[in-house]
Amino acid sequence: MPTDLRYLILADGAFGPQTSKTANACIRYTPERVVGVVDTTQAGRTAQAVLGFGGDIPVVGTLDEGLRLKPTAILIGIAPSGGQLPEPWIDLLARAIEHKLDVWSGLHQFVSDIPRLASLARQHGVTIHDLRRPPADLDVSRGRVRDISATVVLTVGTDCNIGKMTTQLQLLGALRNRGIRTRFAATGQTGILIEGSGIGVDAVIADFIGGAAERLVLESAEGADLVLVEGQGSIIHPSFSGVTYGLLHGSLPHAQVMCAQPSRTAIRNHDWVAIPALPEFIRMSEAAAAPLRPAPVIAVALNTFDLSEDDAQRAIERTQRETGLPTTDPVRYDPAPLVGAIASFHEARANR
Amino acid sequence: MPTDLRYLILADGAFGPQTSKTANACIRYTPERVVGVVDTTQAGRTAQAVLGFGGDIPVVGTLDEGLRLKPTAILIGIAPSGGQLPEPWIDLLARAIEHKLDVWSGLHQFVSDIPRLASLARQHGVTIHDLRRPPADLDVSRGRVRDISATVVLTVGTDCNIGKMTTQLQLLGALRNRGIRTRFAATGQTGILIEGSGIGVDAVIADFIGGAAERLVLESAEGADLVLVEGQGSIIHPSFSGVTYGLLHGSLPHAQVMCAQPSRTAIRNHDWVAIPALPEFIRMSEAAAAPLRPAPVIAVALNTFDLSEDDAQRAIERTQRETGLPTTDPVRYDPAPLVGAIASFHEARANR
Repeated sequence: MPTDLRYLILADGAFGPQTSKTANACIRYTPERVVGVVDTTQAGRTAQAVLGFGGDIPVVGTLDEGLRLKPTAILIGIAPSGGQLPEPWIDLLARAIEHKLDVWSGLHQFVSDIPRLASLARQHGVTIHDLRRPPADLDVSRGRVRDISATVVLTVGTDCNIGKMTTQLQLLGALRNRGIRTRFAATGQTGILIEGSGIGVDAVIADFIGGAAERLVLESAEGADLVLVEGQGSIIHPSFSGVTYGLLHGSLPHAQVMCAQPSRTAIRNHDWVAIPALPEFIRMSEAAAAPLRPAPVIAVALNTFDLSEDDAQRAIERTQRETGLPTTDPVRYDPAPLVGAIASFHEARANR
Repeated sequence: MPTDLRYLILADGAFGPQTSKTANACIRYTPERVVGVVDTTQAGRTAQAVLGFGGDIPVVGTLDEGLRLKPTAILIGIAPSGGQLPEPWIDLLARAIEHKLDVWSGLHQFVSDIPRLASLARQHGVTIHDLRRPPADLDVSRGRVRDISATVVLTVGTDCNIGKMTTQLQLLGALRNRGIRTRFAATGQTGILIEGSGIGVDAVIADFIGGAAERLVLESAEGADLVLVEGQGSIIHPSFSGVTYGLLHGSLPHAQVMCAQPSRTAIRNHDWVAIPALPEFIRMSEAAAAPLRPAPVIAVALNTFDLSEDDAQRAIERTQRETGLPTTDPVRYDPAPLVGAIASFHEARANR
């Protein structure tokens, strides 16, 4: 990953706390790389004003204004509905390439497969990074993760977009500060963007989900004591449970950290799928792992962004009581309870 | 699917009861389409002598001998190890194309993506059918299967290659004879080859497994009372559980038929994963479906090919006793117990 990256983030019409996941994570974890955000509907504001973090990073209304901020790359910070790039976006990316900006994209549709943009990129000597493009030589998983000595911890969740990546990123620094050589194994486009490496397991051929997870964990474990694997989806998600199980059974974690949002009672966009009570869901998650390798849930990360201070505190206390597990919101509060749970688990394993 | 298909099956060095799944299913269910099999190591024998079925279909030692049998197409009946086509196979396919044979392939590597073969095919006016190539416009699943009235029955299994496709194919005729308009929804290359349609769910982008299953069931349900979905993998398979769960949660069956092999006690090639006792595995399979739509296991299909007559009978009786479910080996014996279980379940649903 180039060290002098200066992203202009494209999030037109969708920059906001709940709508621009990739943009937001990039601003939260690597603000030094972000020169500005393009969104006509928020132009003139700052990232701080829109998201509640991100400081003075400006929001501008047009690509031309963005170019004045001297970016070296354009980053697609949202997914257009339908997953395919609409024509106006292609025009915009073409202009960015003509201004010698690299392109970073986490879309399912690969930008470098669009002949017009690929040809322009060659002509102007810029690189198109498709974060979701899987390695060409993936294989099925073979259970080789069982041979490594590092502790593997996977975040799992009741639903998508609930904190599985964010939780791992919030814990990384504190675990390293304890002297545990910790690696973050990114499995989605946003995590890959932040970490600079990883495999987008939702974009590989279905037969190779487990193999992708296996390869990622093996690579991440080199020289590491602890591997924090970014979870995906939910074991009860109608659209994405295949990815969730492939990742679980391919990465073979020693322990799971459960991510949940107290206010969410059904799967988003699928209100016909009720989310079971957390103690029951934890039991289901442990049962899902057990036939291959037992992986107890050792802590709970709550996403309380939509709760008042009092309600957030009450939710954390109630969850801790009902599950008997260390619990906190690792974004809103000090992640120490989760850090402590993982460090203790790792040390107990290492000393066995 | 052309009606005058005459396949020459390529299974060199691997034609046998346990090694050439695609070839064998093609010979079992559509023997009228097969003019011969190419396998140097078995040349001079018949399919009947090698497999125990298939009658006089000859095995020949070379492509040239096979061409004398007047095939219209060459069918790749086995997968080369590693999944990639070795150079000698490409030469052989090139010669087949030069003799105006269409190519049918269920490999992960698409034959029509090999420039030399694609170009030859254009030149000679023949078609390359890549059975695993997914539809280009797949989407994530949206739970729309819940809107159809047809009964959906999925075969599930303790492991791969245990009878999930074969069981459905053995039941199809008998269910139709009862006046139930029954469709087979093929999810793997062999099923697609036999049925003439379907989607290879193991070859789609991981995010779209559920969407592929949803589309397949919606299409199969048109004008049908009953849809028999071909299951894949196993909920405890280290490499393929992602496909299994994606298919389960995308197809949303009303009932499951469990396929098991009494002599198999661990996942093949993964002896570190023990297969639980069948009553427990049935409970796990029902629990896997339940959060989205309850799907009881209503019958058991045993694969007893490696047991003596006495042992097979004893295994069936024991399974029936332990599970309380109608049980048989639908290949070795009359599939009536399974047909009866599915028909009764369907009729009870239809009359509700």
